[in-house]
Amino acid sequence: MTEAINHQVRLAQRPKGDIQPSDWAHTDESVPTIGDGQFLVRISHISLDPAMRGWLNDAPSYIPPVGIDEVMRAFAAGEVMESNHPSFTVGSHVTGVFGVQEYAVSDGSGVLAVDPSTVPLPTWLSALGITGLTAYFGLFDVGALADGETVLVSGAAGAVGTVVGQLAKIKGARVVGIAGGPEKCRWVTEELGFDDCLDYRQDGLSRRLHTAIPKGVDVFFDNVGGEVLDAGLAQLNRGARVVICGAISQYNLDRVEGPRNYMNLLVKRARMEGFLVFDFADRYGDAAKEIAGWLAEGKLRSEEDIVQGTVADFPATLQRLFRGENKGKLILAI
Amino acid sequence: MTEAINHQVRLAQRPKGDIQPSDWAHTDESVPTIGDGQFLVRISHISLDPAMRGWLNDAPSYIPPVGIDEVMRAFAAGEVMESNHPSFTVGSHVTGVFGVQEYAVSDGSGVLAVDPSTVPLPTWLSALGITGLTAYFGLFDVGALADGETVLVSGAAGAVGTVVGQLAKIKGARVVGIAGGPEKCRWVTEELGFDDCLDYRQDGLSRRLHTAIPKGVDVFFDNVGGEVLDAGLAQLNRGARVVICGAISQYNLDRVEGPRNYMNLLVKRARMEGFLVFDFADRYGDAAKEIAGWLAEGKLRSEEDIVQGTVADFPATLQRLFRGENKGKLILAI
Repeated sequence: MTEAINHQVRLAQRPKGDIQPSDWAHTDESVPTIGDGQFLVRISHISLDPAMRGWLNDAPSYIPPVGIDEVMRAFAAGEVMESNHPSFTVGSHVTGVFGVQEYAVSDGSGVLAVDPSTVPLPTWLSALGITGLTAYFGLFDVGALADGETVLVSGAAGAVGTVVGQLAKIKGARVVGIAGGPEKCRWVTEELGFDDCLDYRQDGLSRRLHTAIPKGVDVFFDNVGGEVLDAGLAQLNRGARVVICGAISQYNLDRVEGPRNYMNLLVKRARMEGFLVFDFADRYGDAAKEIAGWLAEGKLRSEEDIVQGTVADFPATLQRLFRGENKGKLILAI
Repeated sequence: MTEAINHQVRLAQRPKGDIQPSDWAHTDESVPTIGDGQFLVRISHISLDPAMRGWLNDAPSYIPPVGIDEVMRAFAAGEVMESNHPSFTVGSHVTGVFGVQEYAVSDGSGVLAVDPSTVPLPTWLSALGITGLTAYFGLFDVGALADGETVLVSGAAGAVGTVVGQLAKIKGARVVGIAGGPEKCRWVTEELGFDDCLDYRQDGLSRRLHTAIPKGVDVFFDNVGGEVLDAGLAQLNRGARVVICGAISQYNLDRVEGPRNYMNLLVKRARMEGFLVFDFADRYGDAAKEIAGWLAEGKLRSEEDIVQGTVADFPATLQRLFRGENKGKLILAI
């Protein structure tokens, strides 16, 4: 019997601007052996997230950057193959920060036991995972969505955006999305129930937003930054909340474009607030229960864009994310 | 006896960029007669405020712009000369939006009766007026200053900035200012008790801020915008509050420079919030009482930069404001 190999993707050098294939190294190692209190995970699904771009920069942030020659950091899901840990038994399924590789050893920190018989494993990385929780706490806690309000969400066809819009609809809000291209806009309105969606690639986004949202925006959930953020800032209602979840349009730029319309925060007595879902960890359980209920009732759809491949396909799949080619949560199934 | 004349300054045309003398017209009218429920104010002190620049733009904002050929809008203080109003008797003193002119007729809306025997009339336009209330509600309500925190205030030597820094010191905060030039910095530290002050005109503001505030900023009260706002955003602590009170560096620009470091709001789970003091009108009385107490105890100094002149000096005096030549509240005494 041949020894099992752990194929891995490591950071070879820090990208400048767009991430290039040459920024990655592919390594083969023996599958690691586990120690006391540890378990071995065979990874089946790797989550691809816009936040990954930030993890590659050698700059202070909310977590240390991925080191050169380290296995690329990634959320993933898989099955426990061996275990010296009382809470994670062989054959059970888990999600955690396992990295872009085929096997990971864990001591259980940050690992969640999940049940693929209730919802499929990719959904535990999507609506029932960090993605859905990000939408939930961003919209309800940071955004403080109230009855009868209007929600604007950019990156509407992305992983978090699709959930934000649906959660807002569940709460009875009017929901307008901003997405790239007519097909994504058609998809979020016809399939996901958004009231309207504007294509930022067409001219005159600000003018079109003004027409589409005559009553103004109460919660603007921004995943994009740049001109899209500015267009939304121009439509705020008095007391509006701008939730800063990401800025995918800016991550690959040398020089971030700041929101020129930020003084509308003063004119409209509005606030712009950033957040990290990890700060809400003590409430994950209750939120996930509520999200699971909506999924079971058919009120919420978890949208996954699953690429079948191997870990070697990670670099090309990540490029799809930054080109905006995914609809819903982008996942690499290996 | 010659008829009394009301000298006035009116907006002749909308300024492009910096305000020019040719943007104003000087008119002479008869002193108006009062009707039922009205009173006549002889204006003695005119308040000059950065917000005036915004009032000149023909763009939607929190109040309509000053119209072409209208008397320039301004807060002012004066004495009641004639009255058909039960609450405002002849010989009493008042503050209100009386405009850049020598006489104004009022029906009492937005007018406050003030007592110049407790504090001098200019102070009713400064620490005990809208300026001090702006500092108070911005720092305590929007900024939510808590015990043991560090406050950064830009425009530190300006009307609002001088009060913000002193109020924060009264509450025991560490206070660092940003001002233009070594003399202003010396003044706010030696005379007003700020712990430190950095001159934004010198190079490397971000680096120097980082050195001056090793523990980071909890409340950043920004009156300036542009590079100063960006430098402060780079020093935020987790959960920091950025209070957007103004952006004097940007008012005369065709194209506002947005804060490039706004994504630090996400990294630091911080918020940036705008406000208008008028929204707190129902609490003016209590706040003014508290401010008056600090003034009486000598804990707070109301700093006024008073120019002696006539209404014809308004255009040149306003230029001083936008050149940053004032220390404390700029007032034209006529």
